[in-house]
Amino acid sequence: MSYKAPLKDMLFVMNELAGLSAINQLPGCEDATADTIEAVLEENAKFCGNVVAPLNHSSDKEPSFWHDGEVTTANGFKEAFKGFAEAGWQGVQHPAEFGGQGLPKLVATPCIEMLNASSISFALVALLTDGAIEALLTAGTDEQKSTYLEPLISGKWTGTMNLTEPQAGSDLAAVRTRAVPQGDGTYKVFGTKIFITYGEHDMAENIIHLVLARTPDAPAGVKGISLFIVPKFLVKSDGSLGERNDAHCVSIEHKLGIKASPTAVLQFGDHGGAIGTLVGEENRGLEYMFIMMNAARFGVGMQGIGLADRSYQQAVAFAKDRVQSRDLAGSPGPVAIIHHPDVRRMLMSMRSHVEAARALAYVGAGISDLAHHHPNADTRAANQAVYEYLVPIIKGWSTEMSQDVTRDGVQVHGGMGFIEETGAAQHYRDAKILTIYEGTTAIQANDLVGRKTVRDGGAVAKGIIAQVRATEAQLGAAGGADFGAIACHLAGGSAALEAVVEYMVANMKSDIKGVFAGSVPYLRLAGIVLGGWQMARAALVAQQRLDAGEGDASFYKAKIATARFFADHILSQAPGLRASIVDGSAGVLALAEDQF
Amino acid sequence: MSYKAPLKDMLFVMNELAGLSAINQLPGCEDATADTIEAVLEENAKFCGNVVAPLNHSSDKEPSFWHDGEVTTANGFKEAFKGFAEAGWQGVQHPAEFGGQGLPKLVATPCIEMLNASSISFALVALLTDGAIEALLTAGTDEQKSTYLEPLISGKWTGTMNLTEPQAGSDLAAVRTRAVPQGDGTYKVFGTKIFITYGEHDMAENIIHLVLARTPDAPAGVKGISLFIVPKFLVKSDGSLGERNDAHCVSIEHKLGIKASPTAVLQFGDHGGAIGTLVGEENRGLEYMFIMMNAARFGVGMQGIGLADRSYQQAVAFAKDRVQSRDLAGSPGPVAIIHHPDVRRMLMSMRSHVEAARALAYVGAGISDLAHHHPNADTRAANQAVYEYLVPIIKGWSTEMSQDVTRDGVQVHGGMGFIEETGAAQHYRDAKILTIYEGTTAIQANDLVGRKTVRDGGAVAKGIIAQVRATEAQLGAAGGADFGAIACHLAGGSAALEAVVEYMVANMKSDIKGVFAGSVPYLRLAGIVLGGWQMARAALVAQQRLDAGEGDASFYKAKIATARFFADHILSQAPGLRASIVDGSAGVLALAEDQF
Repeated sequence: MSYKAPLKDMLFVMNELAGLSAINQLPGCEDATADTIEAVLEENAKFCGNVVAPLNHSSDKEPSFWHDGEVTTANGFKEAFKGFAEAGWQGVQHPAEFGGQGLPKLVATPCIEMLNASSISFALVALLTDGAIEALLTAGTDEQKSTYLEPLISGKWTGTMNLTEPQAGSDLAAVRTRAVPQGDGTYKVFGTKIFITYGEHDMAENIIHLVLARTPDAPAGVKGISLFIVPKFLVKSDGSLGERNDAHCVSIEHKLGIKASPTAVLQFGDHGGAIGTLVGEENRGLEYMFIMMNAARFGVGMQGIGLADRSYQQAVAFAKDRVQSRDLAGSPGPVAIIHHPDVRRMLMSMRSHVEAARALAYVGAGISDLAHHHPNADTRAANQAVYEYLVPIIKGWSTEMSQDVTRDGVQVHGGMGFIEETGAAQHYRDAKILTIYEGTTAIQANDLVGRKTVRDGGAVAKGIIAQVRATEAQLGAAGGADFGAIACHLAGGSAALEAVVEYMVANMKSDIKGVFAGSVPYLRLAGIVLGGWQMARAALVAQQRLDAGEGDASFYKAKIATARFFADHILSQAPGLRASIVDGSAGVLALAEDQF
Repeated sequence: MSYKAPLKDMLFVMNELAGLSAINQLPGCEDATADTIEAVLEENAKFCGNVVAPLNHSSDKEPSFWHDGEVTTANGFKEAFKGFAEAGWQGVQHPAEFGGQGLPKLVATPCIEMLNASSISFALVALLTDGAIEALLTAGTDEQKSTYLEPLISGKWTGTMNLTEPQAGSDLAAVRTRAVPQGDGTYKVFGTKIFITYGEHDMAENIIHLVLARTPDAPAGVKGISLFIVPKFLVKSDGSLGERNDAHCVSIEHKLGIKASPTAVLQFGDHGGAIGTLVGEENRGLEYMFIMMNAARFGVGMQGIGLADRSYQQAVAFAKDRVQSRDLAGSPGPVAIIHHPDVRRMLMSMRSHVEAARALAYVGAGISDLAHHHPNADTRAANQAVYEYLVPIIKGWSTEMSQDVTRDGVQVHGGMGFIEETGAAQHYRDAKILTIYEGTTAIQANDLVGRKTVRDGGAVAKGIIAQVRATEAQLGAAGGADFGAIACHLAGGSAALEAVVEYMVANMKSDIKGVFAGSVPYLRLAGIVLGGWQMARAALVAQQRLDAGEGDASFYKAKIATARFFADHILSQAPGLRASIVDGSAGVLALAEDQF
């Protein structure tokens, strides 16, 4: 159950598909030389593989537990987080000004993948802290920045996001937590928040809760939500810790997966009021929270990819080791099950999904770097629009994919997969949260349909489709059975995607529920077409290298075969999805409530 | 988390699709009058819903446990099994001669579905006992029948199947357990068996282990395996219990799901030898075991359907109850989430899968009754061939389907779904075993490809496809948008299925691994086409009833809408699966082992 970071594929994607060399030259990214980056990834791979990955299974068996308001995290987590902090990993993508390494998102992304492949439960504390840092960087006062950012970026303290309440899951309009101004610049916060990841733990000196709440005169609905910093321990002006704040963990949840990650119920203000300070302006909390959420959504997509890769690696190891039944083509005795065609089919499905989703996410990270650092404002804006189109796909598709992959991961193990000691089942359990938190797949899909597709009349989507078509033309020129199959299925995919974009833009006004009935199938379609596109681009690069006699021929041949598999088996689903979306809303919406 | 048996749909399928009235008239089935059957189903529904279903969640939280060789089953299981036995439910489908009710398989099938929907963990003891009964009925001596059948059928004793050994999972050629003849007609059995469901428990007076083992002079491989009865307690000639046999449970597994069902490691012969008697002839054990397995495979398919329906019912109840966010088409305040299109889409997908798989399985059960009871030998043989084609599909597709459905079941619950207290997560965990035990999906698919499709040159498959085409013709005549969509996608499905059957028959000799690379996609394709066919038949019947103004119009309208959904969203995947199978083997098989 070890984990070996796929550095070769990561670097291939960064260099050949995501344009690392161009990103290195952007203003502010000059430190990210090719050598530095390779060294960073190698160090990160070592830390994740040696320190974090071995904790994944043991921390599932004996998870974090609550006693009397305190949470004791799983064995080894505290020490591992100390190592993580000291090595500076929390700061990879954060500004050097506050102690970070200031590396591009494209470089931070493989680090996030490796940490999550090692242990999603562990990685969550870093992911939530990243979100808090982003929010403070965007909307915090200078004083808030100087007080909180350095300890968060150094891993001395950690952060949380407090959105959900018992009556308000995905619907933030229903938030009831109150924040009452005290006249001294502080607020007293009262309310209950649930599902707070790392809302209480023993791995850091302080926990900085970012909390959505309403001030007394706030308007109803989402326009009346403000964002507050509510630290576990109040922070004195010199940065040292003061009194314990009135924010207490009253229980943690008993969950299907990510058991080592404590999911807290937090009670604010039961003993007089939890002291908080406003972030940014009143009633703009949702906007700031979306900054955290967008960073976190991309991060959750990476969780899906990391977890899927871990599950794939474990399945490959088992399939090579487990000897059972003869080869169908004849063998003197039983063979390793990797020789059996359906085991092979499952492994190729897992592998091709991981590689496609990784390529799409890294390309997205590179686009985000262009959106932040490119000197030309129009280029920044254009890249930002593409990035925002991609975020719900990276989050939604990569996490749904992780559930398919971890299911196959158990299946490859046969009966052993169902036994918890094997470890494959943990991945299947852990994966299920990924399509739920930070916005369910349906919420990602609604975002994709509404804000990202219909609002601009499908312009960004069609711009991307035009790029897919350019790749199709290159595939047509490449020749051979593999490229022919890839070209054929990619063309089917882009045609389906275009038809769906046009259908959504045309019908949103007249048939809003019909359009949204196809939202998740559209997200899935976009994922497989854009993932398949990246696999096609990868195959073209691989063929160029093979033709030139450069590099590792086995790696490049495998890349072409994996792209071929993805085209025949996954991209081939695109026309069916088009039918579901364009023709299928009648069946979705036909029944009256009482007919269920 | 209650369970209400869907008697209306069950009776609809039995009467309108599976030909219950014709089966009632078969010799030996005359007792199964419509009134009797309705009474049986209603009683069974009451027992399952009131007695068994409430144990499902509690028995998962506090599962059966092992101590010092004994297994204490979960609270309530012992009493529930006593009630089950006393009411005669173990005997529904077994001969009246040995105390059973002698009802057709078509009537036993909904009973099996209800029991499994109530608790798979509980139902397993009955399922394994059914298998032991089948094997003894087929191959037992008169003495064995008179000794063992009555107590098994009455639920006084239970049965097990002992196939798997640590080195031999799916590969029975590798079985090593030894059986040494003692010269007195008995054998001493020595060996270790793993994954033995209900291999030890406290719910019955005795446990009858059916054990695969090799006699000293047996040939190697599967042709040297014999089947033995090895009771936990030896049975005296008067039927009373004698000494404890040397068959001991040394541990039970810690599993992902079905936690209340004890999965035993059994040690035979560690204290001198476990005494067993041969079933049937030496070296024909595999053949007898397949009798049990085929009954069990159909039963596991029913487990998938029952579990999926339970998950669906729970999701519907939550979706009607949980209020969150406004209706997309506008609403004064937040609405129950069943109004949100993607929740609706998930519920319709769950519902249509359950209904399609149920219809296919019940139709299969009816065909099995014709194969057993029809007076004409040719008709029996023809139905037997169709039934054998259907068994791997019913097992493989219904169980894979149950994993899709239970995943959606968690997803509908959002964050609550991930909390174990909600109960949705248990279904997701429980479902994962169903595609593994009694032969993995790949093993079902290999059976479907090899023995059931290629061996007869695709004759049975094409005969079924011809029946699908006859339904398509009726759909074409029915008119309207719903029937038009159903006709279109069913035609696409049958064309894809026919193309795949022809591809497999044509290529088996020249490209065996390529053909088997498509085995699981073929099973899936066959499942959705034949399931979609049954939904189409159901829709046609529903329209006839509506046209005639008969019966429950709301039920019939829902049936048509559900068939429409299945066509647009599920049957529409068929052409993509054809591409995967016919063109996709290159990508499956391209990589060398060291490229993984």
